[in-house]
Amino acid sequence: MSSRGVIIVAGGSGTRLGADKPKQFLTVGGKEILVHTLERFLAVPEVGKVVVVLPEEWIEEWREIAARYGLAESHTVCAGGDSRIGSVRNGLAALGECDLVAVHDGVRPFVSAAMIERGFEVAEEFGSAIPVVEVVDTIRKVGAEGSEIVNRSELRAVQTPQIFDGEVLRAAYASCRSERYTDDGSVVERWLSSRGGQLAFYAGERNNIKITYAEDLTLAEFLLAKR
Amino acid sequence: MSSRGVIIVAGGSGTRLGADKPKQFLTVGGKEILVHTLERFLAVPEVGKVVVVLPEEWIEEWREIAARYGLAESHTVCAGGDSRIGSVRNGLAALGECDLVAVHDGVRPFVSAAMIERGFEVAEEFGSAIPVVEVVDTIRKVGAEGSEIVNRSELRAVQTPQIFDGEVLRAAYASCRSERYTDDGSVVERWLSSRGGQLAFYAGERNNIKITYAEDLTLAEFLLAKR
Repeated sequence: MSSRGVIIVAGGSGTRLGADKPKQFLTVGGKEILVHTLERFLAVPEVGKVVVVLPEEWIEEWREIAARYGLAESHTVCAGGDSRIGSVRNGLAALGECDLVAVHDGVRPFVSAAMIERGFEVAEEFGSAIPVVEVVDTIRKVGAEGSEIVNRSELRAVQTPQIFDGEVLRAAYASCRSERYTDDGSVVERWLSSRGGQLAFYAGERNNIKITYAEDLTLAEFLLAKR
Repeated sequence: MSSRGVIIVAGGSGTRLGADKPKQFLTVGGKEILVHTLERFLAVPEVGKVVVVLPEEWIEEWREIAARYGLAESHTVCAGGDSRIGSVRNGLAALGECDLVAVHDGVRPFVSAAMIERGFEVAEEFGSAIPVVEVVDTIRKVGAEGSEIVNRSELRAVQTPQIFDGEVLRAAYASCRSERYTDDGSVVERWLSSRGGQLAFYAGERNNIKITYAEDLTLAEFLLAKR
């Protein structure tokens, strides 16, 4: 089987949720969000090397947390960059060569093993696998001229893990000259499109939420208790 | 003060959630979703007449439910049409003349009194009030040719209650020849734009969810318990 690596990006040091630490270190069900996320990937037998990308100043604290859960040896830690792009680049360097690489948000702790496996299968066949879910809400596009309804049947919400052929991901990041991307699929898509290729997609899960706002923490507690 | 009417649209008889009854009759915290929704509007002092639009074959059951909660006299019931458009038209006929009319999804039981009042104030001043919230997810637009990222800062998710000048809403629905609309704001926008007018917006709330899928029922239980 192809070698399957994982980069968990938790490079943000923002404390947008009003806490005194970055959101990946806040707890849900008494356990740090990033520990939940890491455990999800470690539970998938096909997953090989796992790299966790963290703000440099939080690496020591993370090592202590990971040791407390017996996870110190389970993964490699590296420091993030100034941007998401930089963090993924550092993660790729720490990961080394892998046939397939999954890139996942550290603050999406509810990804299921079934979803991870589905993503790897699609990426194995098509070279990339971007998880998407339908958009339930009516959506308007707003601009200086006013606004208009967007046909929501044409819209998809993008999640992670986004999984790529390792060589393609490495080449796409090596050639990317902009730091503004916040979505790995967009970096790879740009690289692919200049070569006539395009991204492949797979089905995400509605409960695979990204913890972004304070409300999401209470929802996260609930999703955890429900399992 | 202007007279303020409400149309709660619960005309769907679909059982998409896998239950044996339409979703507005499923319970959250032991109480039917539609009862929660109705109570939210009845709790706002400025709200006058309320019309609940239901599938004809469910009206008897609804009357029994409403009576159980002492709500039989609190509102008028009318039968829905074959489409959302038809249901709102029937609701307008049952409501009679009102200066301002709020149209709300029966399966959005968590709308707050503050939000309803805010919407009526904006509609009073501008003739319409469409609640929107920011889109948190990365969004892709998919089509036959492939897909592309949409700048999410330009996107807004549309909620209800959408509130309109009563005459404008009536005129817009009277002149609408298509049954395909599922969003009242779009019907009114079309009518307004041919007269040089445009919609006004107000801030929705993230917790004002529309119960659409089975997962939403558990989230709804959570939101209810949290209040």
